[in-house]
Amino acid sequence: PAARVSGQRQDVWSIINEAAAASPKQPIVNMGQGFFGYNPPSFLLDAAKEALDRVDCNQYCHTKGRPRLKKAIADAYSPFWGREINPETEVTVTTGANEGMLSAFMAFIEDGDEVIVFEPFFDQYISNIEMPGGKVVYVPMHPPATGATKTSSAADWTIDFDELEKAITPKTKMIVLNTPHNPVGKVYSREELQKIGDLCVKHEIIILSDEVYDRLFYVPFTRIGSLSPEIADLTLTVGSAGKNFYATGWRVGWLIGPEHLIKYVSAAHTRICFVTPSPLQEACAVGFEKAEAAGFWDETIQEMKGKLARLNAVWDELGMPYSEPEGGYFVLVNMAKVKLPEDYPFPPHVINRPRDFKLAWFLIQELGVAAIPPTEFYTAENAHLAENYIRFAVCKEDSVLEEAKNRLRGLK
Amino acid sequence: PAARVSGQRQDVWSIINEAAAASPKQPIVNMGQGFFGYNPPSFLLDAAKEALDRVDCNQYCHTKGRPRLKKAIADAYSPFWGREINPETEVTVTTGANEGMLSAFMAFIEDGDEVIVFEPFFDQYISNIEMPGGKVVYVPMHPPATGATKTSSAADWTIDFDELEKAITPKTKMIVLNTPHNPVGKVYSREELQKIGDLCVKHEIIILSDEVYDRLFYVPFTRIGSLSPEIADLTLTVGSAGKNFYATGWRVGWLIGPEHLIKYVSAAHTRICFVTPSPLQEACAVGFEKAEAAGFWDETIQEMKGKLARLNAVWDELGMPYSEPEGGYFVLVNMAKVKLPEDYPFPPHVINRPRDFKLAWFLIQELGVAAIPPTEFYTAENAHLAENYIRFAVCKEDSVLEEAKNRLRGLK
Ligand SMILES: CSCCC(=O)C(=O)O
Ligand SMILES: CSCCC(=O)C(=O)O
Repeated sequence: PAARVSGQRQDVWSIINEAAAASPKQPIVNMGQGFFGYNPPSFLLDAAKEALDRVDCNQYCHTKGRPRLKKAIADAYSPFWGREINPETEVTVTTGANEGMLSAFMAFIEDGDEVIVFEPFFDQYISNIEMPGGKVVYVPMHPPATGATKTSSAADWTIDFDELEKAITPKTKMIVLNTPHNPVGKVYSREELQKIGDLCVKHEIIILSDEVYDRLFYVPFTRIGSLSPEIADLTLTVGSAGKNFYATGWRVGWLIGPEHLIKYVSAAHTRICFVTPSPLQEACAVGFEKAEAAGFWDETIQEMKGKLARLNAVWDELGMPYSEPEGGYFVLVNMAKVKLPEDYPFPPHVINRPRDFKLAWFLIQELGVAAIPPTEFYTAENAHLAENYIRFAVCKEDSVLEEAKNRLRGLK
Repeated sequence: PAARVSGQRQDVWSIINEAAAASPKQPIVNMGQGFFGYNPPSFLLDAAKEALDRVDCNQYCHTKGRPRLKKAIADAYSPFWGREINPETEVTVTTGANEGMLSAFMAFIEDGDEVIVFEPFFDQYISNIEMPGGKVVYVPMHPPATGATKTSSAADWTIDFDELEKAITPKTKMIVLNTPHNPVGKVYSREELQKIGDLCVKHEIIILSDEVYDRLFYVPFTRIGSLSPEIADLTLTVGSAGKNFYATGWRVGWLIGPEHLIKYVSAAHTRICFVTPSPLQEACAVGFEKAEAAGFWDETIQEMKGKLARLNAVWDELGMPYSEPEGGYFVLVNMAKVKLPEDYPFPPHVINRPRDFKLAWFLIQELGVAAIPPTEFYTAENAHLAENYIRFAVCKEDSVLEEAKNRLRGLK
């Protein structure tokens, strides 16, 4: 096999989901991977069912996406940008945000080019950058000083802009931004984004802004592409129907950006996935057309805020500090106080991993609660920063969250 | 942009579909790209609609695919192999056959590795091999000697096995096979496959056998992976729900092969698309479960044979030689006798392309019939071999085929 796969560890998502499926404590409460525990809105599902009855919706469409979806995306995003987005030249539909980001890296990265990524990072970025030969340059997000002992806000995670500028070299081609951030829950402030954007304009760096949680913010949310025409001219914004519409299994995503960038992303996408599922694209078009009037975006925020409050109450009870998210649906919880039995029979693929893997395994086995070990979002060098933490996803039914709390109380 | 996209011409599929959409002769008869002009069977559509109502079917599943689909695929293919395929280790679901093949190249090809491809070839192979740094080594399929003057069988396209063996070097890692073949329509004979397989065993070459048209054969169809345990041990077989179930827009494909290969394909797929659309996977599982008993596979063959006969009658009328396919739904027609007006106003993106592009453009503009210029399936060096040909897809409604014939009679 090629080095790009032979050295690869199993992805954390399969590891945790497989462990969850094999746990003696069934039914498991799975708060690991960020899939929704409830269905997409009925206006989306109805639209998908209708699309399935239309001949053209079951066949290949244009590699850039179905015209109706491109238009719906352009219409939905134009107000954020304060100008009309051209659906034909400034939008391209991809097979999920992940394949969209891979397409962007394939479009712009050649052997030895550097891509700046903030650490912690969503794990897929790394292999996606390395596939076309890119080199990842890490810049830390600094956790709040008292974050390990006291509950704090995700806002207190900070970037050191001198560190960022020092990471830039003549080989820096792109920077990956993620706001709202997975797993930290930080929503970058306008000031932070302005500084990042200015640096990118100065050094001509393409900004790949992963904004898949863009409908889930609990503080004001700014899109870096909206800050100035100069910044917009080098920004690719990533969106996801999976996250927007509670349909992570649909694999519909998109990139929005200036024509001179989008055309190359689209060329790469053509050769990676060719086209994106047609009936689901059509449904997402209807989804965008109906969501605003249906009050769906507001509801999404209110609902998720409720879920966050519901779950987080248990950490307060348990005296476990956590990072209060400004956006998204993940919570990082400090579980330093959970004592793992010294002779606990961890399996071989867990025993040599950092403490958070053991914690996650222990929770799955003993409580029947699955969650994600966040060292997977760090380089090996910095994994120690996360080894007392566990990431919980709250995009689950309220009853499931209550059951989780009951089980977690067993940690007392 | 990276060289892999900056030098890239627009894909032939977008070129022809865009030209078709812009033709003055609307509604166009589109026999270009191989999308079906009719719907998937109702047992598939009903299953998709039911899946959309199930919470787990709208969310991420395991990167290797939904268990039910993996099992359905293993069950469907086991009889062909004459042994039980293990659904957990020998099957992996991919986001269409295209992304499946890309995953295979990403899994096994490193910079400078060579991949043998028969020419003509399905165009996507080339970029998919080049993305991980592979070098394509072309081996010709020789057309029948009188193919340009007389209608012949796709069976008369031949491989020279000395040429094939000479193309093998110490750097040869993989060979791509395609049977039934697009665009030639050839179904490789058992003897041909045995020779190819023996060579691959001798030189330890991985066989990537693109069998997406495997339910559409009009002569006995052999799967190379079934020939011997030694050949099976280095064969990856590619399948496609899009082609099997008339749903090219669904993007569900799969690879079947030995565990020691499949595990790396799956690792690559994880980093490319992560997962494949869940509700459509579930529907395809039901599709496989029901197809045989519903007589669907037989019907598929009979129907397509009828469509081929229906269309091909017009070439006989027009005195245009064609290649009679042994499988699949494409027909290569020799249009040497069509005179293109000397001063015809071809647009800039057509004027410098080979004659078949001009022919295709002319048919779209003047007759409102879209079809594919097959030089796109040849290297620049050998494009002259195809410049008098046009590829027609017959997977369209009978009434559409009749309309096509009426329009094509205008060429007389
Ligand atoms: C590959 S999982 C996709 C992102 C997500 O939902 C998560 O981080 O849990
Ligand atoms: C990218 S088109 C996929 C294959 C096909 O249907 C064709 O060759 O027309």
